[in-house]
Amino acid sequence: MTSPYADIIDLLKLPPDGDEAAVAAVRARDLTLTKPPGSLGKLEGLVEFLARWQGKAAPTVADPMVAIFAGNHGVTDEGISAYPRAVTAQMVANFTNGGAAVSQICAMHELNLRVFELALELPTGNITREPALDDKMCAATIAYGMEAIAGNPDLLCVGEMGIGNTTVAAAIFAALYGGSGADWVGRGTGVDDAGLARKAAAVDAALALHRDALIDPLAILARLGGREIAAILGAIISTRHQHVPVIVDGFVATAAAAIAHAVNPAAIDHCIFAHVSAEQGHQRALAAMGKPALLQLDLCLGEGSGAALAAVLVKTALHLHNNMATFAEARVSGKID
Amino acid sequence: MTSPYADIIDLLKLPPDGDEAAVAAVRARDLTLTKPPGSLGKLEGLVEFLARWQGKAAPTVADPMVAIFAGNHGVTDEGISAYPRAVTAQMVANFTNGGAAVSQICAMHELNLRVFELALELPTGNITREPALDDKMCAATIAYGMEAIAGNPDLLCVGEMGIGNTTVAAAIFAALYGGSGADWVGRGTGVDDAGLARKAAAVDAALALHRDALIDPLAILARLGGREIAAILGAIISTRHQHVPVIVDGFVATAAAAIAHAVNPAAIDHCIFAHVSAEQGHQRALAAMGKPALLQLDLCLGEGSGAALAAVLVKTALHLHNNMATFAEARVSGKID
Repeated sequence: MTSPYADIIDLLKLPPDGDEAAVAAVRARDLTLTKPPGSLGKLEGLVEFLARWQGKAAPTVADPMVAIFAGNHGVTDEGISAYPRAVTAQMVANFTNGGAAVSQICAMHELNLRVFELALELPTGNITREPALDDKMCAATIAYGMEAIAGNPDLLCVGEMGIGNTTVAAAIFAALYGGSGADWVGRGTGVDDAGLARKAAAVDAALALHRDALIDPLAILARLGGREIAAILGAIISTRHQHVPVIVDGFVATAAAAIAHAVNPAAIDHCIFAHVSAEQGHQRALAAMGKPALLQLDLCLGEGSGAALAAVLVKTALHLHNNMATFAEARVSGKID
Repeated sequence: MTSPYADIIDLLKLPPDGDEAAVAAVRARDLTLTKPPGSLGKLEGLVEFLARWQGKAAPTVADPMVAIFAGNHGVTDEGISAYPRAVTAQMVANFTNGGAAVSQICAMHELNLRVFELALELPTGNITREPALDDKMCAATIAYGMEAIAGNPDLLCVGEMGIGNTTVAAAIFAALYGGSGADWVGRGTGVDDAGLARKAAAVDAALALHRDALIDPLAILARLGGREIAAILGAIISTRHQHVPVIVDGFVATAAAAIAHAVNPAAIDHCIFAHVSAEQGHQRALAAMGKPALLQLDLCLGEGSGAALAAVLVKTALHLHNNMATFAEARVSGKID
């Protein structure tokens, strides 16, 4: 029988290369702008990133999308969250009504916000007792994520909402990179010490239960993950093939990127990581992939909030690249020979 | 004879306290917003910072100003910059004409840009041979900076332009914190290895020449500094007394804050540091004052560019504080008891 993941694995293993000619064009223009070469630091790198993965010598951020994928989790039965599961659906309404942090970041900075609900009435299996998803459902949810961004944004921010999902993300990281629950769990939405101990115990129980089944990254995702993580993985896959650069939000969204990275590290070269979360395992996860992050603001909110803030920097970097004067235009002297 | 700095010292030694009642009001509202407490990390701290130093329970960023102070430096005769001195005035025109990076950051994000030229036709003395400024001129330039922001912004970003001024800033840091020229100089606008060696030698020569005169922070400023650094010091002093929070830009602007800090560390409690510059001495200078920085973007442009980017984050943080829904408004469940 063919694996339900066969097409997904193929896409991950054969990602298109970046456009180095577009990057060279961006660098050539950058050298003409009225500033010392390199003096805008990482902002210059962000413009190159857009050019490389859009495949455009004149990259755009005309239609940026912040996509939030929301799912519910059976593992909340283990008392691992400070908030009840009902908050997932309540916050989805809050995103749409403009009341959430990410809604207001998007409104202020002209980013398009899209929210994708993933069967909130059907939580995934409690990973301490059963698989989160069967392989067929996991593959279908990845495929859903691949389709979700078909509106063709020119920049995609991926974020999530799901009470309980820092626990499942911790389980994914432990399965991919080793260590126990205590190495990867954090306070999430603000659990107390007892809740933190329950999170670590839940991860350890899940790792023990599924040990023999965690044979590859997609099995890890199905057994331990969640619908929003599977959908984000799908979005990461399809954006690469559609030439859309991606900004990955925090701890949970990074778990989706880590699944792709475990199949093929090059599969996430079109992704940057927005920020280092205050969730204690996030820095460790980024280090395991050898990935830097753009911001360090001690955020731990999820919902794409850090990715949206990073998108503001990306938009600003491109605005400077497009609108600064050149040395010739401004009649500013160049370097002393 | 009275010191020309007597009034300045008085203002630095008796700065008004922050408004902790305003901070408490901000924290009380923050706890009602639809997010876990603390989950917006440093963004929450930025709103508290505004409240504390504006003295307002409902702080504002309705009239933010980016002030660039520009000066010229006799030490450029020592071959310590990659660009000719004429670039200072050329870039002042570029700021005003909208061609510079900071101009475009301000245009995109609705920050008011003001440029203050400080006798560009009269460079300061070459610090390897004579004082940069006499005490009377130094005090007058500080006073000019105190008046410059009289338009009453509700947030001030301080930045600078001045070919040669990373050399004089390095000299100030060496005089305040010890070490030799090599410990504090960096590439500035992009000097090569030989230029870097000339920068270090110029700082060492200045330290040796003025050694016996570097008896207090304001003497260090006059002997080794520059007009733009003196004016920024003035702006830092008057903002405190006018309840205007300040965002300090990079390496050179930090040298002005360091003079104030050396007189009285509490005198700069109303200042935050926008970013850690790629200029190698900047992290060391921030560490000497025990001050964190908000961003780490490897910028080394000056002209207030990093402070303006930080102001975008501050504006965004306040926008979230003012516009997010409360748990009650959005009917989102609170924490599990």
